[in-house]
Amino acid sequence: MKAVTILSGGADSGTLLYYLLDKGYGVYILTFDYNQKHKKEIEYAKKFVEETKKRYPDNILEHRIVDISPISDLISKGALMKEDEVPHNFYTEETQKQTIVPNRNMILLSIAVGYAIKVGAKKVFYGAHKSDYAIYPDCRKEFVKALDTAVYLGNLWTPVEIEAPFVEMTKYEIIKLGLDLNVPYEYTWSCYEGKERPCLECGTCLERTEAFLLNNSKDKLLTEEEWKKAVEIYYRKKKEI
Amino acid sequence: MKAVTILSGGADSGTLLYYLLDKGYGVYILTFDYNQKHKKEIEYAKKFVEETKKRYPDNILEHRIVDISPISDLISKGALMKEDEVPHNFYTEETQKQTIVPNRNMILLSIAVGYAIKVGAKKVFYGAHKSDYAIYPDCRKEFVKALDTAVYLGNLWTPVEIEAPFVEMTKYEIIKLGLDLNVPYEYTWSCYEGKERPCLECGTCLERTEAFLLNNSKDKLLTEEEWKKAVEIYYRKKKEI
Repeated sequence: MKAVTILSGGADSGTLLYYLLDKGYGVYILTFDYNQKHKKEIEYAKKFVEETKKRYPDNILEHRIVDISPISDLISKGALMKEDEVPHNFYTEETQKQTIVPNRNMILLSIAVGYAIKVGAKKVFYGAHKSDYAIYPDCRKEFVKALDTAVYLGNLWTPVEIEAPFVEMTKYEIIKLGLDLNVPYEYTWSCYEGKERPCLECGTCLERTEAFLLNNSKDKLLTEEEWKKAVEIYYRKKKEI
Repeated sequence: MKAVTILSGGADSGTLLYYLLDKGYGVYILTFDYNQKHKKEIEYAKKFVEETKKRYPDNILEHRIVDISPISDLISKGALMKEDEVPHNFYTEETQKQTIVPNRNMILLSIAVGYAIKVGAKKVFYGAHKSDYAIYPDCRKEFVKALDTAVYLGNLWTPVEIEAPFVEMTKYEIIKLGLDLNVPYEYTWSCYEGKERPCLECGTCLERTEAFLLNNSKDKLLTEEEWKKAVEIYYRKKKEI
């Protein structure tokens, strides 16, 4: 069974890859360079795959880094692509909306579908999850279903399905699954800032800290000292809400 | 009213542009470089827009040529992108299927939607038409409707609609409309070969010749001599079917 999946370099898509490998899929992986401010996630995606190959040497069929920066020039808007500041603190409806990159996920999934047809894979897996529901409409089940239908109707001779196995799961549940699957989270990057180390204060850092805390676990990406600081920041910001 | 449309450089998308200008839209135009063998169509798209600006100086809001060749490396397959020969003669089901580029139109439309959101346009126009129905499933109304729904659900805060006003029209009817609107077809390119002049023998050349013939018109892209040859080839091939 062949599948295509998108690996951003973050914790969710990394967990999705292990979910697929655990199920025995042969996986074609795409990572996109869209001029994101946090380009570091691409380097992490490469390291993550290298590490994963050691455990699943036969199931990683390809990992391509695809440069779509000319497209990003067209659609650039939103905090992830340099025009605005990445919001710090827990997301509010307003600040999370600032991180939307117009139609990004549909663009990436459409490319993944073309690639699936090329390599003869019948499924494209998408790491959308419930914690993003409220603000990112393209992380909702309704969108996934509609896109799956469009993909089917547009490619009748070479059918491909879009599946989003985490669509009903929270970030806490995803990390729980990933810890069971021994996902090497030390090779994942979530922070939206492009700095040397995670800022620990942006909405995405806070969500990540929370997911590991709820699992009574530590984020292996961080040193002991950083983790202490992350937990301290998390509780402080939590009180401020 | 702002709209985004894709201009390939061919006759159908050129007619669509005039249809929109005639309706008073301010139009943002995208032309894609996807390593197509017939890159000439991109040069024609530029000339076409230059010519059009003379007539509608206020309504052409932007024309961007977008390089998506890194994506084309991923999905390359099919006669338009170098691996196979462009089929000559009228298309049969088999030969037209060779010209499919996996999921290309969904990829291009997804990008166009992102761009529409960026520039504040509420509609993306797509030049799909009935003559392509049988072989290209993504030129069918069912696909357009499903994609429109997916686009709506994926971008709830910034709704964009996909419209395909030619979806029930044949190529003959599109050219008929274009002749009424004085579309400068001399600046459009249809041939799938990358040669200096149209080959007149590929399926697309034959369809183009037929559309002008049925309108009792001449293809202004061609010299008098070329047009005579095109008509002669058309009738010869027609007898061979």
